[in-house]
Amino acid sequence: MDGRRGNVFGAVAALQAQFGDRVSVLPDICAAHGRDLSLHPASPPDAVVFPETTEEVARIARLCSAHHVPMIPFGAGTSLEGHVAAVRGGVSVDLSAMNRILDVGQQDLDCLVEAGVTRQQLNAYLRDTGLFFPVDPGAEATFGGMCATGASGTNAVRYGTMRENVLGLTVVLPSGEIVRTGGRARKSSAGYDLTRLFIGSEGTLGFITEIRLRLTGIPESISAGLCAFESMEGAVNAVILTIQMGLPVARIELLDEKAIQGCNLYSHLDLDEKPTLFLEFHGTEQSVKEQAERFGEIVADHGGGAFTWATREEDRNRLWTARHNAFYAGLNLRPGSKALTTDVCVPISRLAACILETKADIGDSPLIAPLVGHVGDGNFHLVFLIDPDSAEEEREAHRLNDRLVERALAMGGTCTGEHGIGLGKKDLLAKEHGSALGLMRALKKAIDPQGLMNPDKILPDNTLETATF
Amino acid sequence: MDGRRGNVFGAVAALQAQFGDRVSVLPDICAAHGRDLSLHPASPPDAVVFPETTEEVARIARLCSAHHVPMIPFGAGTSLEGHVAAVRGGVSVDLSAMNRILDVGQQDLDCLVEAGVTRQQLNAYLRDTGLFFPVDPGAEATFGGMCATGASGTNAVRYGTMRENVLGLTVVLPSGEIVRTGGRARKSSAGYDLTRLFIGSEGTLGFITEIRLRLTGIPESISAGLCAFESMEGAVNAVILTIQMGLPVARIELLDEKAIQGCNLYSHLDLDEKPTLFLEFHGTEQSVKEQAERFGEIVADHGGGAFTWATREEDRNRLWTARHNAFYAGLNLRPGSKALTTDVCVPISRLAACILETKADIGDSPLIAPLVGHVGDGNFHLVFLIDPDSAEEEREAHRLNDRLVERALAMGGTCTGEHGIGLGKKDLLAKEHGSALGLMRALKKAIDPQGLMNPDKILPDNTLETATF
Repeated sequence: MDGRRGNVFGAVAALQAQFGDRVSVLPDICAAHGRDLSLHPASPPDAVVFPETTEEVARIARLCSAHHVPMIPFGAGTSLEGHVAAVRGGVSVDLSAMNRILDVGQQDLDCLVEAGVTRQQLNAYLRDTGLFFPVDPGAEATFGGMCATGASGTNAVRYGTMRENVLGLTVVLPSGEIVRTGGRARKSSAGYDLTRLFIGSEGTLGFITEIRLRLTGIPESISAGLCAFESMEGAVNAVILTIQMGLPVARIELLDEKAIQGCNLYSHLDLDEKPTLFLEFHGTEQSVKEQAERFGEIVADHGGGAFTWATREEDRNRLWTARHNAFYAGLNLRPGSKALTTDVCVPISRLAACILETKADIGDSPLIAPLVGHVGDGNFHLVFLIDPDSAEEEREAHRLNDRLVERALAMGGTCTGEHGIGLGKKDLLAKEHGSALGLMRALKKAIDPQGLMNPDKILPDNTLETATF
Repeated sequence: MDGRRGNVFGAVAALQAQFGDRVSVLPDICAAHGRDLSLHPASPPDAVVFPETTEEVARIARLCSAHHVPMIPFGAGTSLEGHVAAVRGGVSVDLSAMNRILDVGQQDLDCLVEAGVTRQQLNAYLRDTGLFFPVDPGAEATFGGMCATGASGTNAVRYGTMRENVLGLTVVLPSGEIVRTGGRARKSSAGYDLTRLFIGSEGTLGFITEIRLRLTGIPESISAGLCAFESMEGAVNAVILTIQMGLPVARIELLDEKAIQGCNLYSHLDLDEKPTLFLEFHGTEQSVKEQAERFGEIVADHGGGAFTWATREEDRNRLWTARHNAFYAGLNLRPGSKALTTDVCVPISRLAACILETKADIGDSPLIAPLVGHVGDGNFHLVFLIDPDSAEEEREAHRLNDRLVERALAMGGTCTGEHGIGLGKKDLLAKEHGSALGLMRALKKAIDPQGLMNPDKILPDNTLETATF
């Protein structure tokens, strides 16, 4: 037995009867739906189905529930903790065909999108409205996936994460019941906060099919630029002071010398290979100028060099595209390698200690690991570049990540700032939230008593999932 | 039978054995714990207990659970929907003795407080740190209560509500289990968002005993003032445009002519009795000036008069004290009256229509109802002043509120922006979130299977609570 569950043949036959060629059992299609961008081994589902409406998702859920077959929501497959792996088989429900932008409330700064819409798609669509959606994980993820992992990204320091930017959801429960949460008012105290229960639930409580997003006005003035520092300590202390002073930077991103080297190669840039901050200021012309001046004073006090401005829109785009490609740029530093990506987030006062101790760890190890981070939130990533054939390198990367997470937890931080728990951090969740695991399990059991929604993710033991039927 | 439940005598005797004179059954004490600031009839608990630590709250919960006796968390008793009424008897757990400020993380802009700490207490304590906590419901509420109702207030338009300003909680479940949620990192994707499940849960899922709050730097420059308008329509349209333009006002509050009349009498002011906006701008000196100029342009286009500035701190305090006392000032307009307070919140584009139609309703009725509102969020309150001996006036106020809520829901709004559901809005919750009630009930049952935590609040039927033991 490989742990596969339920009457898969019955479920797939019933799906095919209802959805015809929108159900696939082709090995290539199944394989592509059983892996994400992480190191976690692929686990292909038994079938993939492509619904086009919330009502269709509800039919799929009812059918899988009736056959006791696992269901795994799938967006763009850009997750980093094995979220989409069908470790107990079952049906991958690919929501990418649900990619309609249903409504833009220009007067109310909100919009309603289906789960398969991606952030670049939405922002392109909004271009002429003067509005944008600020949350931007590096990948071209879907909004369903961004909700499911509680995504954030470079703008979160100013605009918040998905938690602060979703007004309401349409959710299909594993039973097939359709639930609408939240609303269009900017705030509400009407009953339990179901919206935020599903944000970060990683597909383990239900399918998110529609999302009402808060939008933000495109600022009147934007200026961006970068600044290299003589030392990592100087760069991080400049960030800490910026946050403590309450300077409302829109983005403040750190790349270490290794990450800059990767960007130079991959994005054809010619930057000094030193710890570097990428920044962006939003506001009126006056206030952007003032923010930049104040930041300049901080830089001067911390051994930062001259500020290189990117004022034209195309220069800014080139800068941020390079930043967003830092993951691929990292991989490119060691062709053929695969990546283990870390994701701790610590209280801002501990950021310098956390980064410096971690850099020392890497210096003592044979591995290469560029560092990039949303440092204004205290969140940073290492991208360990690993020879895919070396179990030893993988062990070493895990050992260093374990040390990193222990350090972050001791500092009052979290093992994941934005990627989620998935398959990869279940033991770490137990370390971080030991007292809360029983309650998380009770919620899971109340909503998904059969344990069919994305089994084996988030919760560290499989009590629920191994129940037999 | 009056619906009282469980072995109350056994529970009270056991509590007295453990807590001595920190348990009271005196009628006056019990009566004071069975009512809040609302019209809802008082329902005194059978006893009140005053714990001093989380561990003591856990002991109380275990003991009440063992005796199947209801438990009602109590903070300052300032709620507005009958939240603390012991409608099925039981034990009121008064957390006001848990009022220690345990830790201020000045470097990390956060602090840890016990549930009984009040917002004015905290802000007085923080005075020399350069930090403050922005969420300010009018009442001197406790942080436990503010979490339980998802409170907001005048600053929410800029700084968010309790949902955006709490990093983590210590919670005692009805079983007596102690759970810690969240952490000190500014963001996390580690497991289900339990923090926000308890924010807004109105004491129906557990006791909140400790809260880690995000703090904000006191802005370098603050300016405040007020501006009277010829028409209500002009005042509201000025607000709508301010929000749509993304002007980062820190406060933008509306008082109608009746509310201004109340303030004049109660707070000894001499304001024009016209629809008036109270504003506050936060930022650098430069940016505050710029915000005020831009707002001035909007005012001029909407029939607003001259702006009266309150630049000195004592003038600002006088202004906002008058605003915060608007509820009592309203009551004072009709001595001896009691208040029914409404709380709808609508999408900003519908605010003018919602307010104007509602004012027309009031104009057609014999009742007096000053209007005050956190209009930047689309949230406003009417304070219906009712003769306590007139059932007819109470019926009329309810009829008008029902019409108001129906109007708000039809506009995509909510029946409660910040006060919560309590006893008073259970039917309205069913109207607003019909599809989600089953799920809310499942969560309640998973966490509080005996239905002992603050029974009969939020959920519109009593299926859970009337289970017999």
